[in-house]
Amino acid sequence: MVGAVRSSHPIKYLLEAESIAVVGASADPLKIGGRPIEYLRRFGFTGRIIPVNPQRREIQSLPCIPRLTDESAAELAIIATAAPDALISLTDCLAAGCKGIVIFSAGFAEFNPEGRALQERFARMADEAGAVLLGPNCLGTINAHSRLVATFTTALEHSQLPVGGFSYFGQSGALGAYWIEKVEASGLGVAKWITTGNECHISLADALLYLAQDPETTLIGAYIEDIKQPERFVEAARIARSAGKPVLAIKSGRSKPGKRAVSAHTGAVAGEDEWYEEILKACGIVRVDSLTEMVDVGRLLLSNPPPRAPSRLAVVTVSGGAGALICDAASDVGLDVPDLSADMRRRLDKLLPSFVLRQNPIDVTGAVVSNAPMLGDVLTALASCAEFDTIVIFLGLMSSIKDGLIEAVKGARALGKPLVLIWVGASTESLQALRDCGIPVFADIPTTLRALAKTVVMS
Amino acid sequence: MVGAVRSSHPIKYLLEAESIAVVGASADPLKIGGRPIEYLRRFGFTGRIIPVNPQRREIQSLPCIPRLTDESAAELAIIATAAPDALISLTDCLAAGCKGIVIFSAGFAEFNPEGRALQERFARMADEAGAVLLGPNCLGTINAHSRLVATFTTALEHSQLPVGGFSYFGQSGALGAYWIEKVEASGLGVAKWITTGNECHISLADALLYLAQDPETTLIGAYIEDIKQPERFVEAARIARSAGKPVLAIKSGRSKPGKRAVSAHTGAVAGEDEWYEEILKACGIVRVDSLTEMVDVGRLLLSNPPPRAPSRLAVVTVSGGAGALICDAASDVGLDVPDLSADMRRRLDKLLPSFVLRQNPIDVTGAVVSNAPMLGDVLTALASCAEFDTIVIFLGLMSSIKDGLIEAVKGARALGKPLVLIWVGASTESLQALRDCGIPVFADIPTTLRALAKTVVMS
Repeated sequence: MVGAVRSSHPIKYLLEAESIAVVGASADPLKIGGRPIEYLRRFGFTGRIIPVNPQRREIQSLPCIPRLTDESAAELAIIATAAPDALISLTDCLAAGCKGIVIFSAGFAEFNPEGRALQERFARMADEAGAVLLGPNCLGTINAHSRLVATFTTALEHSQLPVGGFSYFGQSGALGAYWIEKVEASGLGVAKWITTGNECHISLADALLYLAQDPETTLIGAYIEDIKQPERFVEAARIARSAGKPVLAIKSGRSKPGKRAVSAHTGAVAGEDEWYEEILKACGIVRVDSLTEMVDVGRLLLSNPPPRAPSRLAVVTVSGGAGALICDAASDVGLDVPDLSADMRRRLDKLLPSFVLRQNPIDVTGAVVSNAPMLGDVLTALASCAEFDTIVIFLGLMSSIKDGLIEAVKGARALGKPLVLIWVGASTESLQALRDCGIPVFADIPTTLRALAKTVVMS
Repeated sequence: MVGAVRSSHPIKYLLEAESIAVVGASADPLKIGGRPIEYLRRFGFTGRIIPVNPQRREIQSLPCIPRLTDESAAELAIIATAAPDALISLTDCLAAGCKGIVIFSAGFAEFNPEGRALQERFARMADEAGAVLLGPNCLGTINAHSRLVATFTTALEHSQLPVGGFSYFGQSGALGAYWIEKVEASGLGVAKWITTGNECHISLADALLYLAQDPETTLIGAYIEDIKQPERFVEAARIARSAGKPVLAIKSGRSKPGKRAVSAHTGAVAGEDEWYEEILKACGIVRVDSLTEMVDVGRLLLSNPPPRAPSRLAVVTVSGGAGALICDAASDVGLDVPDLSADMRRRLDKLLPSFVLRQNPIDVTGAVVSNAPMLGDVLTALASCAEFDTIVIFLGLMSSIKDGLIEAVKGARALGKPLVLIWVGASTESLQALRDCGIPVFADIPTTLRALAKTVVMS
């Protein structure tokens, strides 16, 4: 049924098209009309790419046509022409039978009333043609799995576009670009990416509904300026929730200058923040403060096993000071660091040096430098008991014994208890080795505990 | 007068000694008794280094003596022997006339009542000899300027120990180590570094008093578990303040498990947090949540020119979404993003593309990709007007035009208005180029605005 619903919605043409026309195609791979062609080829899109430009016979080694006609019809058309030419481009595309349209051009509802009227006309035209229209004033879409890259975002200049289960939708393309950068830098992979811009036709609710039903999406991040179809949005969120896909959202326009900025950006009118807060809460959507926090929560949820409803933390550190700071940060976000049971004390008695107190947080001290397996034994004891939900491990520097520390963490991980690892000053190789086995590494105490607390909301 | 006060306090022997004995010296540069020798030589300490170990004639190519005697007297002695041997080592050092003593060994007040009694005896012995004693259970000291490295911290394994004006003092040596790593990674430099551990003799108040009067220190970071001599501490903070040296402090033990952790760490008893909050506030000390925040505030205060009492922000972005998020984050911390004056609108009319709204935040949009000097013109207009205290600039990716963006920022900087630059996904070369001219680069919106708001407290 999910498959049926999905394939029946024409939004699929924006993400699953097998032929793509670029109207206003450019031979310059750095120009707005040149980038999508360069990206589609570089990332290995296997469908047809049709450059459209009346002044060229060939663009980036591909045959170029002067105008879209029936015969040349593509499933998806990217309109990269300037705003004054967008109407005629759209008319051509719809006449040629394109079912998905992406309009990059800006200068519509976000700029003046005439622009708003024009984009409303675009929407009616799309409806009449049975097509869907993304934008205007948007950065388009990406399907990392099929390598469909219908965007000119500079985020892909140096990206490998790693494949994964994390999807983004939002009104802002630029924030979507920074999201790609952060997702890739943290070792996660992308499923789908939808930037809705001015939303004259396709809205955030449509995008969420698509992602909720997309089999390649396991986790969803959102940037929201306004929710134009709240009932549809709530229904989409409900479907995401029943599919077990957490949704993490930034909602901007909380402040007065923020509302002004939102209106200038996409012509959206952000209402009172309380209203959004309630909607998001009712949907089970986790509100995050920044892309950094979104990706931190994402890294926790995509780790193996992910923390689930942690409330009782065991804390193991190599620094008494860090242990105290973790306790304070946990307390700030409602997570407890309960003391050890008598039984656990007895078990730890056999493992810890005599000068280490048997209490939570457990400070294994610098003694670990000459005895890394001791850390592994302590973690294993904690991972195999039922008195804690999650183990928070704090390491710092110690690159000379990094292999032993990594082995200790990996050994405990095998027991299936969620681990959260904060390692200040970890080497690049250590980060990579841990990432390769699904263990994310964090570097700051309060932000990590805040992210951990936000995984509770979804449980 | 400052110089006079400073040179008269024997704490100077812990940081300005010209001869250093290492008692319990090791030939292994990775051992606690070997690291300080390796560091002193590697970092270029020009004074005498005297390894002490009855079992060796030579250690790390230096002549080794079996015991400290009058003739061999050093100004500073590092005691790196195990706890049971610390008493006899200390007796020797004091008899030999050492005026500064650092005791690394753990297992005293933080462990049991006997340990507490023993460290109290150490303190009386130091007093009788007119010496000062740092620790026990501490990581020692660093004077980056004179290359005096009386510590075994692993933070120096891969460090260059960059010289600068930022000093650290705190009960935790490990957090001090992470502080070094973060300070160096962010391009700042170190002046002095004092870890007090169990504080049987030299306390945080002594350390702060020294740093407040130290001519090489311009900014002070602290990690505080407990303040043992509050009146002296307040007086030291007053001196730091009149010397124009901001103090940024982490205070741990706010929560119940946090207090328990603090007590296990250094034997300190953390009282009610309200009491510390009041003391720190009365001293004009800025409380920060983490080392990350401490270094972020430090980077702002050490930039040129530093933000001073910013309350009215001009915000210039390449992303409307980021502009909205900056407004929200500013509002959360009490900073305003006021709208533009009519005069400023007129000035910007001549600079901005027609489709960019003349309002604060100013979203110069992707148009900057083909016209980076436009960003420079906008920044220059804002930097030369009186309606804003600080300009917050948001850039993202755009590595293909990085040189133009950097020129634009540097040009505006020349006008003397504080700039705060958030650049998501900046390249390593861009970070370095900006750092080289005193412009720090941040990567996250809410944390940067929080740090900016904390610079207000000190004005």
